[in-house]
Amino acid sequence: MQRVRVVLSHASHPGNIGATARAMKTMGFSRLVLVNPKIFPDPQATAMAAGADDVLVAAEICSSLQEALSGTVLALALTARRRELATAPLWARAGAAEIAQVAGAAEVALVFGNETSGLSNDELAQCGRWAMIQANPECSSLNLAAAVQVMCYELRLAMQDAAAPPPVAGAGASATHEEVEGLLTHFEASAVASGFLDPEWPGRLMLRLRRLFARSGLEKEEVSILRGLLASFRQPTGKRHGGTSSAERSEGAD
Amino acid sequence: MQRVRVVLSHASHPGNIGATARAMKTMGFSRLVLVNPKIFPDPQATAMAAGADDVLVAAEICSSLQEALSGTVLALALTARRRELATAPLWARAGAAEIAQVAGAAEVALVFGNETSGLSNDELAQCGRWAMIQANPECSSLNLAAAVQVMCYELRLAMQDAAAPPPVAGAGASATHEEVEGLLTHFEASAVASGFLDPEWPGRLMLRLRRLFARSGLEKEEVSILRGLLASFRQPTGKRHGGTSSAERSEGAD
Repeated sequence: MQRVRVVLSHASHPGNIGATARAMKTMGFSRLVLVNPKIFPDPQATAMAAGADDVLVAAEICSSLQEALSGTVLALALTARRRELATAPLWARAGAAEIAQVAGAAEVALVFGNETSGLSNDELAQCGRWAMIQANPECSSLNLAAAVQVMCYELRLAMQDAAAPPPVAGAGASATHEEVEGLLTHFEASAVASGFLDPEWPGRLMLRLRRLFARSGLEKEEVSILRGLLASFRQPTGKRHGGTSSAERSEGAD
Repeated sequence: MQRVRVVLSHASHPGNIGATARAMKTMGFSRLVLVNPKIFPDPQATAMAAGADDVLVAAEICSSLQEALSGTVLALALTARRRELATAPLWARAGAAEIAQVAGAAEVALVFGNETSGLSNDELAQCGRWAMIQANPECSSLNLAAAVQVMCYELRLAMQDAAAPPPVAGAGASATHEEVEGLLTHFEASAVASGFLDPEWPGRLMLRLRRLFARSGLEKEEVSILRGLLASFRQPTGKRHGGTSSAERSEGAD
């Protein structure tokens, strides 16, 4: 449960931050990360936290979701609205089951957006999965802390169930958020250099790639392979110079 | 869902009554019954109800739990504490399943006690079942409205026998097996041309890429983007010839 962080992006109401801390603690979670909270700390947050002041006191404050997700290998974004450019959403229970399995060995995050506007498309694209809480279609927007309560409850139950995840043969270590970001930056530089991407009119290319790789659950070695490939494409002579790393060299010659 | 009533006994904080109304409505429930609320109606209740004022306006007010349960055939009491003289508690999910079955043909109630003291033993004795929400044993007391949210969520799911998968907005059509194969062939040709892959010693590069893309669930458009990128990397001049057609051109010339 130490490997689970709850991220609130741009929360408006300090009362919701406090109620979130309480919701987390009742389900056994303690790592709260706040991305640009509008008002925090605040007496209202403390009042709503009830017995969970320790969670509030230990909360980390970040200036971007990027920073908040640092070190995670899987983030589950919660949203009440259907989005464009989105992969198929999971229902909350299935999302919790996936997060629970990954949390057995690596850092994960549950990500919640602003009370009014939710998560931006840019923020959503940084999350490998997204989930919806089954709700009344005519009134589907739960209070922020209530949504945290439901998800933390589902995750607590899923973590009890996930005692013995199916053994995976051949799966390597997951890439961290930063490693995936490094790959995306590399892709972007290569696409600009090749003329495929016009930096003046970038369109949605990088968003699409980000979404694809977030969904793929990249492994460290896969990031190395793809970066090795990209590096090789930049060689003007079409010859391999093996410049970037020995990882890439050994991969080619495996 | 009309057969389900949510009963709050001796609620202290009007904000919790409003938040309860919202929690109910988001899960499709509308019948709220208040037993001796301390303060109601109240502007704080209305503020916390957000879009669920209609539930508040229609709330019934009773002077005893007896009266509140009139006409029901099964009531499920929620409590965070273990009690003497109580039958074995159900976990919330099992309690919801039982209530859902009965609600198919008769009136039922979910019963919640006061924020501080919970339900009295007398009140508990009027309920046919009681349930606990699985929680952190060191901090097991959910906020009242948060507990209502979790129970109404469990009941909504229990009442939908088998939930259909969430409809997908924005996700594109999946790539066919052949399209993914075409992408892999393109990757291979590019890697050979760039010198990254030695055809004499191919190693496991293609196996790794195949595995990655199989896992990703590629969409048609993503295949086009990646092939466009690969094609652009092959242009010696670094000029862009435009998406898919250039991919096809360079593929044909391989």
